[in-house]
Amino acid sequence: MRITTVGLDADDTLWHNETIFRLTQERFVALMAEAAQPETLLAHLAQVEARNLRLYGYGVKGFTLSMLETAMELTGGEAPARVVREILAAGREMLAHPVEALPGVEAALAALSGRYRLVLVTKGDLLHQEQKLAASGLGELFAAVEIVSEKDASTYARVFERHGTGPAMAAMCGNSLRSDILPALEAGAYAAHVPYPLTWAHEEADPPLGHPRFAELESISDLPAWLDAIT
Amino acid sequence: MRITTVGLDADDTLWHNETIFRLTQERFVALMAEAAQPETLLAHLAQVEARNLRLYGYGVKGFTLSMLETAMELTGGEAPARVVREILAAGREMLAHPVEALPGVEAALAALSGRYRLVLVTKGDLLHQEQKLAASGLGELFAAVEIVSEKDASTYARVFERHGTGPAMAAMCGNSLRSDILPALEAGAYAAHVPYPLTWAHEEADPPLGHPRFAELESISDLPAWLDAIT
Repeated sequence: MRITTVGLDADDTLWHNETIFRLTQERFVALMAEAAQPETLLAHLAQVEARNLRLYGYGVKGFTLSMLETAMELTGGEAPARVVREILAAGREMLAHPVEALPGVEAALAALSGRYRLVLVTKGDLLHQEQKLAASGLGELFAAVEIVSEKDASTYARVFERHGTGPAMAAMCGNSLRSDILPALEAGAYAAHVPYPLTWAHEEADPPLGHPRFAELESISDLPAWLDAIT
Repeated sequence: MRITTVGLDADDTLWHNETIFRLTQERFVALMAEAAQPETLLAHLAQVEARNLRLYGYGVKGFTLSMLETAMELTGGEAPARVVREILAAGREMLAHPVEALPGVEAALAALSGRYRLVLVTKGDLLHQEQKLAASGLGELFAAVEIVSEKDASTYARVFERHGTGPAMAAMCGNSLRSDILPALEAGAYAAHVPYPLTWAHEEADPPLGHPRFAELESISDLPAWLDAIT
């Protein structure tokens, strides 16, 4: 069965994302130093983010609101105005952060785009993801872009039906086992995991070692050869 | 030329939205009564929203962040913690607000869905719009849902190519002349304006009176008859 369509995750697969969240968290820790220990603060933030996921979804705006709520909750509702201002500024800076393709991405996509239909499949703020794609200069290489609110097996089945020839002739590549790999395999697609040095706690999962349609790749540069070898 | 596909706007076309924003603005006015006159506050908020549109896009999360920035800017950066907490709570309540279809919507969509391919075309927060559609109970009537970051002529051309037989055989229905009607006409589609009593300042425009593919309808209940009369 030949592969016709390749789905690619965006954040931490094509460009840095988690690094920017981590830097903002460090800034948040410094800002809240008087009110909370780093571990307490980050544990509470993770809890607030998880609680808000249903309401805010993924992305920077929801993360900014979650930092504000965390600051309020850990100060008995009396976070100083300076803290609020700094969190708002941090959110704006994240949204305006320059986008730079990760090493090997441009060459790998250029090699793939002539042979496969490339589809970007990503969660997050709709406008922000579109802007990041535009800023990355990679937009022209994609046949389609799907910004989705959740990545589960039915998402991949739908995306690969709509933009390709179905999941059985598609492969997904991304850095998150939980969001990119396991549900794509469940939908019947191939899946290649390209790890990123950092993973958001929410995205962690065990690799499906031994699965016949799964590969663990060291770099996105290995993706074209792996895809070409599938027959 | 027969119509095959009908695009429908969501907020203030299928269910209330601007009313909920206005109620939150009233709450914001009361909250900031000590710091600013209502007119000053709302004018400043409109300015902050316009400035942030490029960064935050449309939707409740960006609106919440814009209220927070407005509060900070009008208090010399010293908005009381109580104000911040109340704005955060107002944003959460907007996101959790129950969704109720506007009068006539359910009957009109039921009548249309057997005869035309219905496509929901809406701006706003991806997750929130999906949740509102699910909560409205109208989801089953739509063949497709497109949540977009901007509604311009190329958006409508793309949507009606993807989900129908092109813009020349499609009609768009919505409450915003600026977002639903003018760009749909520009794309070559038909367009029916169903006004909502309130319009966000950003969405105002002059009606294209006399345009051969345009209609001003009093209610969405008039949509099926208008569409059936197009030949």
